Amino acid sequence: MSLISELMNALQILPGVGAKTAQRLTFHLLQKDKLGGKHLAETLLKSIELINECESCRTLTEHPMCKICANPNRDVSKVCVVETPADIIQIEQATDFKGKYFVLHGKLSPIDGIGPAELKMNKLVELLIDCDELIIATGSTVEGETTAQFLSHLAEKGGIKATRLAHGVPLGGDLEYIDNSTLAHAFASRTQL
Amino acid sequence: MSLISELMNALQILPGVGAKTAQRLTFHLLQKDKLGGKHLAETLLKSIELINECESCRTLTEHPMCKICANPNRDVSKVCVVETPADIIQIEQATDFKGKYFVLHGKLSPIDGIGPAELKMNKLVELLIDCDELIIATGSTVEGETTAQFLSHLAEKGGIKATRLAHGVPLGGDLEYIDNSTLAHAFASRTQL
Ligand SMILES: [Zn+2]
Ligand SMILES: [Zn+2]
Repeated sequence: MSLISELMNALQILPGVGAKTAQRLTFHLLQKDKLGGKHLAETLLKSIELINECESCRTLTEHPMCKICANPNRDVSKVCVVETPADIIQIEQATDFKGKYFVLHGKLSPIDGIGPAELKMNKLVELLIDCDELIIATGSTVEGETTAQFLSHLAEKGGIKATRLAHGVPLGGDLEYIDNSTLAHAFASRTQL
Repeated sequence: MSLISELMNALQILPGVGAKTAQRLTFHLLQKDKLGGKHLAETLLKSIELINECESCRTLTEHPMCKICANPNRDVSKVCVVETPADIIQIEQATDFKGKYFVLHGKLSPIDGIGPAELKMNKLVELLIDCDELIIATGSTVEGETTAQFLSHLAEKGGIKATRLAHGVPLGGDLEYIDNSTLAHAFASRTQL
């Protein structure tokens, strides 16, 4: 196989990149932006080699401990549990939360053999020593809710308050585009103005 | 900047990849497919280092001469001129053309200072020695047609028949976006200029 075909194939490991897009990316990298391509390849190699889980919160970092965990100004009394490192980025961008995080890298799914041990929840327990509120920010899928239930019991056993993100109508969203169960929930949880 | 942010930025040199997609790709590469990511990075580095223009037809190859130019069974009496290396891939896939190619890496555009010298048409002249048909497969944009006119005159001066892909190529469209059967039809119905 020619090297150029090998590159087109290698690019197709990227989610959403088929043969046609891979071809377009290949010619872009080889003709329009060799310097950017070289930087991308080198950064990717370095990242794959050096980035691992934070030893405290399990997010991804090239250091033993991530920037949030290493920051002495973060509030250790609030711990927010999320499914993925991307969720941390979103919460940091959207809110002014100044507590700690814990990343599960998944959710409980007994059918797939994913229990508390697979999600390394023992590491979460370490974070709960100084914690008085566990904010459960797992998704609202079946497994996300199962995981939330489990974490809520865990908090209860430790005498820690457990909270869950509110469900409801997205801001700026028309009712029209909301699924029925979200709408039903939002209706039942209506608040006085 | 953290290494992970650096990777997200590096990925945004890819056309069509914004911040959100770069984030998705980053986590995919670091969590789901490290092996594929490593292979991609290494192949990209090697490609950027080794791939250059074929010394005969100017397509991209890691060898001094591309597979088509190095193949003694290709018909030297037919030379097909295209704008990009991607166009060769498309014509090879869509048609049974067995002649030679020449890649302009662009099209004539006096306004942008792109003349025959910038497109290295002197190298095309070398290919015309044994040629009796010049197939002009530039796109049907304004510059594509200008380029076709110029090439047609060039062929005429050399006593070579010039042909152009038949209608079927959408007006104002680049070859890249044409489906294979339209392209095959247009190629088969090429007309003398
Ligand atoms: Zn951390
Ligand atoms: Zn060649």
